Amino acid sequence: MPLVRISLRSGKPEAHRTAIGDAVHRAMVETINVPAQDRFQIITEHDAAGLLYDPSYLGIARSDDLVVVQITLNSGRTTEMKKALYARIAELVATSPGVRRQDVLVSLVEVPKENWSFGDGVGQYA
Amino acid sequence: MPLVRISLRSGKPEAHRTAIGDAVHRAMVETINVPAQDRFQIITEHDAAGLLYDPSYLGIARSDDLVVVQITLNSGRTTEMKKALYARIAELVATSPGVRRQDVLVSLVEVPKENWSFGDGVGQYA
Amino acid sequence: MPLVRISLRSGKPEAHRTAIGDAVHRAMVETINVPAQDRFQIITEHDAAGLLYDPSYLGIARSDDLVVVQITLNSGRTTEMKKALYARIAELVATSPGVRRQDVLVSLVEVPKENWSFGDGVGQYA
Repeated sequence: MPLVRISLRSGKPEAHRTAIGDAVHRAMVETINVPAQDRFQIITEHDAAGLLYDPSYLGIARSDDLVVVQITLNSGRTTEMKKALYARIAELVATSPGVRRQDVLVSLVEVPKENWSFGDGVGQYA
Repeated sequence: MPLVRISLRSGKPEAHRTAIGDAVHRAMVETINVPAQDRFQIITEHDAAGLLYDPSYLGIARSDDLVVVQITLNSGRTTEMKKALYARIAELVATSPGVRRQDVLVSLVEVPKENWSFGDGVGQYA
Repeated sequence: MPLVRISLRSGKPEAHRTAIGDAVHRAMVETINVPAQDRFQIITEHDAAGLLYDPSYLGIARSDDLVVVQITLNSGRTTEMKKALYARIAELVATSPGVRRQDVLVSLVEVPKENWSFGDGVGQYA
């Protein structure tokens, strides 16, 4: 059910994008009960004028390797689960492809379960 | 008021994208009371590493023709209306441009009516 | 905390995009208490088939210079603050880079404060 939009600066090899997608998905499976098969991701690359970030907001030193992850998902996760998700995403992308933990921004958008159709014209969770 | 983001794999002719946009808009007009003129759509194409999907989640056989439709709209539609929307989108894109019903994923994000400005710096619904 | 997605037709110089990003951010700082450093923006360009709009919905005369601004932000702003934001964005983009006030569409998506991580794997507002 989550729909994941990942945005990063262009110029990295395809394997870099794939590893980020893998890491984000694995973190969701491990921490917020997302089914392993439930993977739908849109990963986009942007030039410097197309992805702007503050290099020190909240005292975090960001670089051009920034990865912005916006996840639309069903509501119902606790704050503790969300915190576990943030921590695990940062941990896994640091392991592979090696993005610094400071360079991971996550935004969650929650919706009710009847707001999805996964195909066949049916609201599978409704 | 809806803002519609449609994402698909690259490689289709422009008419394919246009037909999908037409189908999604018509379905919204017919099932959830969207005004015929109220059409604002962003349609993006992605390479294989930029649009990832599970080929069988929930038992639905998806292909590279997958179309991901995310609609930001005012809250207030009933679950029945949402179900009618999903069914009609799938039906219309199957008719033209001929996308299989299994290949249509829809995600709704609802907002209150004061969350829109349609121009002139005014919140027209607020 | 806001994550801002700005979409416009392609063909403008980079300075045009930058000026729009500047205007939107400044309006948020001035009207809805966004910290000056809290700037995260994704600006994308689209061809004519990729960004569709109605040229007169609600009696507003739109052109190909349309700018679609979708802001994900913490909930809690009043309707008056939202109206002030719409007005100020339109005013500032009209000043620079000179986008007509009719050509600015704004969509807000509100989330609770625990739905963000700004880096380090931590939910800084949670």
